[in-house]
Amino acid sequence: MTGIPLGPGREFDLIRAIASRLGTVAPALGDDAAVIPIGGTNLVATIDCSVEGVHFRTDWMSHREIGWRAAAAAISDLAADGAGLTGVLVSLGLPGGGEESNAGVEIMAGIGDVVQEMEGTVLGGDIVRSDRVIIDVCALGTADHPVSRAGARPGDRIWITGELGGPAAALAAWSSGGQPAGRERKRFVHPVPRIAAGLWLAQNGARAMIDISDGLVADLGHIAAASGVAVALDADAVPLLCGTSLAALSSGEEYELAVALPPAFGDGDAAGLFRDHDLRLTRVGECRDGSGVHVTLDGRPLETPSGFDHFR
Amino acid sequence: MTGIPLGPGREFDLIRAIASRLGTVAPALGDDAAVIPIGGTNLVATIDCSVEGVHFRTDWMSHREIGWRAAAAAISDLAADGAGLTGVLVSLGLPGGGEESNAGVEIMAGIGDVVQEMEGTVLGGDIVRSDRVIIDVCALGTADHPVSRAGARPGDRIWITGELGGPAAALAAWSSGGQPAGRERKRFVHPVPRIAAGLWLAQNGARAMIDISDGLVADLGHIAAASGVAVALDADAVPLLCGTSLAALSSGEEYELAVALPPAFGDGDAAGLFRDHDLRLTRVGECRDGSGVHVTLDGRPLETPSGFDHFR
Repeated sequence: MTGIPLGPGREFDLIRAIASRLGTVAPALGDDAAVIPIGGTNLVATIDCSVEGVHFRTDWMSHREIGWRAAAAAISDLAADGAGLTGVLVSLGLPGGGEESNAGVEIMAGIGDVVQEMEGTVLGGDIVRSDRVIIDVCALGTADHPVSRAGARPGDRIWITGELGGPAAALAAWSSGGQPAGRERKRFVHPVPRIAAGLWLAQNGARAMIDISDGLVADLGHIAAASGVAVALDADAVPLLCGTSLAALSSGEEYELAVALPPAFGDGDAAGLFRDHDLRLTRVGECRDGSGVHVTLDGRPLETPSGFDHFR
Repeated sequence: MTGIPLGPGREFDLIRAIASRLGTVAPALGDDAAVIPIGGTNLVATIDCSVEGVHFRTDWMSHREIGWRAAAAAISDLAADGAGLTGVLVSLGLPGGGEESNAGVEIMAGIGDVVQEMEGTVLGGDIVRSDRVIIDVCALGTADHPVSRAGARPGDRIWITGELGGPAAALAAWSSGGQPAGRERKRFVHPVPRIAAGLWLAQNGARAMIDISDGLVADLGHIAAASGVAVALDADAVPLLCGTSLAALSSGEEYELAVALPPAFGDGDAAGLFRDHDLRLTRVGECRDGSGVHVTLDGRPLETPSGFDHFR
């Protein structure tokens, strides 16, 4: 069998079908990023595509914000592998005409903003004509200690960085015709890829890691499937941005990290991440023998909310 | 000034505007591929996007052929830098529904075909919903002797691999409602990236190299601009696929290589490429002091045909 086991969902069914068809020419589809040993280190590479009307709307965000967000989504996958950023390549699909050219420059400026913040460079790109704006970002980095989704063991604890719920709250506000609060809007339009935290966690024993892009429960499902463990998630423990709800359990595009750490890693160790990078690390669950994700609230089983499936 | 000088055209105006806006965060936009020193070798990376209705039509080619062609276009940029192929990452935009999922599997199978032929692997990807089929391929490789567009010097000779005109003839046949001849169709649907030839040329003194994707004259214009030379092109010398016309001078998507080699490189040396890789290498012009591309036919100046500009 080729490919890395994935959680349920139609998009993942398609990835499984592709991995099966490609066979040995695609030995490891399904992780956040590919890891390729090269010249004494590991190249880490990932690609992430955003389409107007599916992943963003121009009436919600400026083109510069759209660019930041699209690049941050790709860079976040490097963070989940414990990699630093080298740079990005960008394919930009733009409708014809001068106005769209200006949109293209602004999108690229936003991509430049986040790439510079993460100490990388814009390495290259392609520009094509398309009906809608398309932004496809390939992020490249290197990792001395790459972390996959597949290393979690029974007994490991699950931790997550930051606080969830901001993007879901922003989307809910926009979808109902309103405007999100500034803090929630910021989490949506300017997510900060957790590159520094990912490197720190890789150096501090992370056994499996993923970025929360499909939704916490769905992404923990990927860790469970790839690692061959069950994940028990304590919904009460999930740190939420003040004023947001448990909808955050299924909220995608958070770009925080979920990480499996050995039992010996404790709150004192987590304080080190806060001290070094001003970022909370909160224990929310643990790995057990078995499979799947099992969510409890107040000690009682909670029906599992599903994550974002691009083809649902 | 940032960015590598490019020839004329609206698409290149936009790239120049982006390079200017990004400043130091995008130090070298505009070559076929980015070259990044990493762990004792050079990572070479490029991205190339194909959109249904712009770059391909599903009534002309099977999805498997569409996949081959899209990946070959990206891999060809590695060849132009004298790089071997490590692998590709692919973003696939698909309309929703089961039929399109099957198209997605077929496209990926075609990508797998050419990647395997070039001894690489499919490293990863992303799948998104979109109105039309979109195939964005990031190709990664390594080069011990990377070749840019910028190293040509006055006195260097310009050579090209293979024979031009097949893709233009195929497009002309389809556009007039007919069917192209088998050989011309094959050149369009199954272009062979010149990875082996690019490596050979890099090892045999290539000073500047480009793949013929925008059209021979336009691509030589990029070499001229990047190298700060003029290129004199002898249209009579351009090797054409039997039965094709001088329209090949402006025909894009050939995926042959144009290369500047020092004057000492001669026909006897070129025979080495034919012997090793069964590929003709033909001298078609030379570099001089000055700028631009100057085409002659029967010794008389020929008005310069322009290349493919995605935004014209």
